[in-house]
Amino acid sequence: MKLPAPLEAVVESFQRLPGVGAKSAQRMALHLLKEGPGAMDHLAEVLHHAATRVGFCEECGAFSDGPRCAVCEDPRRDPKVILVVAEASNVLSFERTGHFRGRYHALGGLVSPLRGVGPDQLRIRELLRRLEDGQVEEVVLATNPTLDGEATAAWLARLLEPLGIRVTRIGLGLPVGADLEYADELTLDRALEGRRPLGG
Amino acid sequence: MKLPAPLEAVVESFQRLPGVGAKSAQRMALHLLKEGPGAMDHLAEVLHHAATRVGFCEECGAFSDGPRCAVCEDPRRDPKVILVVAEASNVLSFERTGHFRGRYHALGGLVSPLRGVGPDQLRIRELLRRLEDGQVEEVVLATNPTLDGEATAAWLARLLEPLGIRVTRIGLGLPVGADLEYADELTLDRALEGRRPLGG
Repeated sequence: MKLPAPLEAVVESFQRLPGVGAKSAQRMALHLLKEGPGAMDHLAEVLHHAATRVGFCEECGAFSDGPRCAVCEDPRRDPKVILVVAEASNVLSFERTGHFRGRYHALGGLVSPLRGVGPDQLRIRELLRRLEDGQVEEVVLATNPTLDGEATAAWLARLLEPLGIRVTRIGLGLPVGADLEYADELTLDRALEGRRPLGG
Repeated sequence: MKLPAPLEAVVESFQRLPGVGAKSAQRMALHLLKEGPGAMDHLAEVLHHAATRVGFCEECGAFSDGPRCAVCEDPRRDPKVILVVAEASNVLSFERTGHFRGRYHALGGLVSPLRGVGPDQLRIRELLRRLEDGQVEEVVLATNPTLDGEATAAWLARLLEPLGIRVTRIGLGLPVGADLEYADELTLDRALEGRRPLGG
């Protein structure tokens, strides 16, 4: 006997989630069944609710359950600094630090000639529109330090600098707690390039 | 900014699943969002379908999407042997081996005085009813070799033996691939008790 088909479908769907193997998927499905008849349907409702309510902020592209996200709606957030990230989920990483008080702009991807993604498919036009009123003084490029991330940052820098806006790149170098012994050459190169005076 | 509330609810629900921590729960939720608008709703539908369709076989107590499960409906399964397990999910473990050709009976738990579970709360009456027509020749007790599992097996043996049915217990001993060095005394005791002649 295999699992009843509707249960097997749950296991298969769970298995498509990142980091969930065949065994954990089955364990998760059986757990919901054991919890009682309500548990599985509760998860279904929560998912359906999120599916119908959560989209992207029309201003910055971050996740939002309204037309504009909580950051864009918050008058205390500094409108003079915009931090540009590739994905909406990257906004969450910076928000978790609690130290960035500016606003965000999620591109919805990276320029990648290899994967056929050009600037037109990203939220570049929306970014330029946000810079039109001259309120923004600095754009921080916070794409990943990968091939595509670096290329996108360089491309954006060339696009934005003529507008008289200060364009910066997040610091690259050794992560906190790292060991020089295990750092790759590129990271060490960037760490050297990014060296800053002590004290001062 | 935290996650939009409906998305946070998805993360919280995922986190209640076994083996899913805060980080994986968020990764799973964001993965569904990235997959596009349909992915989250698809999982919701699959769960709702399972919640409304999957229950327990009225005959043996295994998971089933009909009144009777696939094993009970299969005329090729030997009606003379019933393997008794505690939970419906245990049936799946034995089915995975593919070697047991009899039928099952899931008790829906174990007798546990400490947790206040008596025989009345288990599917004992349903088991006795299945033995009434005299067709069953052997009942294999396959509860876990734990305190409650052993107690339930012993209790069932005393109940069933007077009915003239052969009552057996699954073999206990060293698991395949185990090392004597790390086996506990109880397991070694059981392995000795369960010794069988070689060759023969």
